[in-house]
Amino acid sequence: MKFFSYLMLFFTVSLLAQNALVLQTDFGTQDGAVAAMKGVAFGVDRTLPIFDLTHDITAFEIWEAAYRLWQTAPYWPAGTVFVSVVDPGVGTERKSIVLLTKTGHYIVTPDNGTVTLVSEVLGIQEVREIDEKANRLPGSETSHTFHGRDIYVYTGARLASGKISWSEVGPSLGQSIYKIPYTKAEYREKALYGTIPVLDSAYGNIWTNIPLSVFEKLEARHGELLEISIYQKDKIIYQGKIPYARSFGDVPVGQPLLYLNSLWQVAIALNMDNFAKRHHIHCGSEWHIQIRKQ
Amino acid sequence: MKFFSYLMLFFTVSLLAQNALVLQTDFGTQDGAVAAMKGVAFGVDRTLPIFDLTHDITAFEIWEAAYRLWQTAPYWPAGTVFVSVVDPGVGTERKSIVLLTKTGHYIVTPDNGTVTLVSEVLGIQEVREIDEKANRLPGSETSHTFHGRDIYVYTGARLASGKISWSEVGPSLGQSIYKIPYTKAEYREKALYGTIPVLDSAYGNIWTNIPLSVFEKLEARHGELLEISIYQKDKIIYQGKIPYARSFGDVPVGQPLLYLNSLWQVAIALNMDNFAKRHHIHCGSEWHIQIRKQ
Amino acid sequence: MKFFSYLMLFFTVSLLAQNALVLQTDFGTQDGAVAAMKGVAFGVDRTLPIFDLTHDITAFEIWEAAYRLWQTAPYWPAGTVFVSVVDPGVGTERKSIVLLTKTGHYIVTPDNGTVTLVSEVLGIQEVREIDEKANRLPGSETSHTFHGRDIYVYTGARLASGKISWSEVGPSLGQSIYKIPYTKAEYREKALYGTIPVLDSAYGNIWTNIPLSVFEKLEARHGELLEISIYQKDKIIYQGKIPYARSFGDVPVGQPLLYLNSLWQVAIALNMDNFAKRHHIHCGSEWHIQIRKQ
Repeated sequence: MKFFSYLMLFFTVSLLAQNALVLQTDFGTQDGAVAAMKGVAFGVDRTLPIFDLTHDITAFEIWEAAYRLWQTAPYWPAGTVFVSVVDPGVGTERKSIVLLTKTGHYIVTPDNGTVTLVSEVLGIQEVREIDEKANRLPGSETSHTFHGRDIYVYTGARLASGKISWSEVGPSLGQSIYKIPYTKAEYREKALYGTIPVLDSAYGNIWTNIPLSVFEKLEARHGELLEISIYQKDKIIYQGKIPYARSFGDVPVGQPLLYLNSLWQVAIALNMDNFAKRHHIHCGSEWHIQIRKQ
Repeated sequence: MKFFSYLMLFFTVSLLAQNALVLQTDFGTQDGAVAAMKGVAFGVDRTLPIFDLTHDITAFEIWEAAYRLWQTAPYWPAGTVFVSVVDPGVGTERKSIVLLTKTGHYIVTPDNGTVTLVSEVLGIQEVREIDEKANRLPGSETSHTFHGRDIYVYTGARLASGKISWSEVGPSLGQSIYKIPYTKAEYREKALYGTIPVLDSAYGNIWTNIPLSVFEKLEARHGELLEISIYQKDKIIYQGKIPYARSFGDVPVGQPLLYLNSLWQVAIALNMDNFAKRHHIHCGSEWHIQIRKQ
Repeated sequence: MKFFSYLMLFFTVSLLAQNALVLQTDFGTQDGAVAAMKGVAFGVDRTLPIFDLTHDITAFEIWEAAYRLWQTAPYWPAGTVFVSVVDPGVGTERKSIVLLTKTGHYIVTPDNGTVTLVSEVLGIQEVREIDEKANRLPGSETSHTFHGRDIYVYTGARLASGKISWSEVGPSLGQSIYKIPYTKAEYREKALYGTIPVLDSAYGNIWTNIPLSVFEKLEARHGELLEISIYQKDKIIYQGKIPYARSFGDVPVGQPLLYLNSLWQVAIALNMDNFAKRHHIHCGSEWHIQIRKQ
């Protein structure tokens, strides 16, 4: 009797303590690749909570994948396992790794820079290279490997559900990961310099990589007009004066504002309109922004 | 022993009785905003069933959000908590509310008209204004608030999982909500008058707001040709004769039909083709339809 | 006491052994149709794991739906119930069926050819016609039926959760299903002939229906240039020499390659670029490919 009760308590508590598996790819959801991945994960553990981060990363855009992980991972509890498959180097010698952050999050990914940003904000506890012989969907050995399905999601699901321990992932790489070099935001000669890593695409708002801590050096007041210049490489694409607003409601409909977005970073928008489309602004490593007082 | 067994029964039954959390936004799923919201909800309760209504509401279109809630909420069981974040007024003085319907559904939303339609069909039991001090993601006090993540989904998840009671949401507003005024369908002088609130966008079918109960006043028979006029404001965009059909199979491929859609409302389509695209029809408060017998 | 414990064990084990419900439609997720279907499924059983295969099947494209089921079903465990609603014949006399495969997978669908491919790869155990009187969402009898919601997902959810047995679906049709005729891949006069059933749309890769077993008859070596011709009906759209590569990394960025995709079938791509867009290739029954040695 006692045994049964403890067993049940164990089962129930393990259910309650289940870790999430969160998937990110550049596959889209139009074809069956993501659904096949979910089938593999569900086959590993039928009680595993499976979520999507997004599958609409621009094809091959590692930087965008890195940004999305950085943006969302901190909002998931410790123990969450992210599987990110944006892998332009598939078939080359890039490693398959799992990053364990200092906060207890796991990221399963090709070692191509995808964890550049998340590793800075959550810290690196340890990195392991996936032992692809031990951690491979049974039956997939004979076929051309679809890494996302046969290795990454299979390993992620087994880790999230406790079917393998951390050390069973494969050999430790210490704290070594491949990082994409990038220009950090800075304050210099009374101006702010930054990049435009992504757009808030549903609304066409411009998101910069300038955090509050750097923005504060400009000592701008709410309502103050700031001079904004946006460049693609060396070519100026937009120039104008935009007020620093507390929120969208501070400016009339259709008018521009500079504000701090939900990630505490400087962003630029048109109230109820699309800044990016109106002014032909895109994002990526070529795009720069400069902000100065009048 | 007995204690353990009851405890287990309690746990198991609570699992079985879990309420769903259903999310609707105009954020799209390309960026990480929705995934951050889901992380917060999962952090509140790891057994919470989390679903998407849609995240593809046209940016800022409150009316479309209102329509989608009205269309789907009745198909979810009592106790389901909907979180709808279509919020053009973010940063202004609009309230954050939770509507409890007479049927036992909850809708967490800015009080901007989103519940106009669902409140009519499911009834208003009580409305509460969210106490944003008590119901706020811990740690988010110091940052610029992303209401969808820090207030709405956090409150919705705690309500769905029983972490807070109904009264802990915040002070009661009685039955008071903001409603968007709209023209109801009517039969007048031997003709039907209605609006086109949405399109059935995957197929390009025209959905009107004319319900069966009003349509019946026309006393149309199956197979009978009806005169249809579609206007944008005062400008006529489409005029033609269309048979009232029992189903798509009643007319040849490529031909128009008038039918009752899955919501029991009058709709117009081309069998196996796209009526909206062919005749340049859109939807929204500017679009009107008139139906009369020959 | 003992009773309680066994009861709990039963509950816990049923939770652990829960079958998945996997949905595929051509509805898109912009409107509320899919969310209404999920509400019905959740109402049947609040512990049911509900997943999406895709809702972005091209409107009315049964062949695409057939291909997606074939591509993904084998990766889900036995007992999984697929509900596929791509139904250009809604309102006509097509039957509503459930296919039980030899591998223990269920597919709930209109009998319009959707199971053509999956029935070949997983085998047909038995087919039953849905008894739409017994298996219909309570309360939906009086309205115009939305089959996806009122019949298909309701039946699928009840089957997945054990609320009805296999025989309660309706009368047996033996092994009879409607199959779409299609040209199978073949090797003839030193050349391979096949079709292009789908594109790997996120990347613009061309997927053919030529499996490894047929491709091997060409006896191509890795690195060897092959002559590729792609036709729309009788018109040649692309002609060129493309190397047979082990993986994308074997060719320079921007260059074409022929490879075996994750389904062990011949595919053609540009490394880090979009072959379909560059050469104006589409997919479907009109599109053919021919591959020969130099």
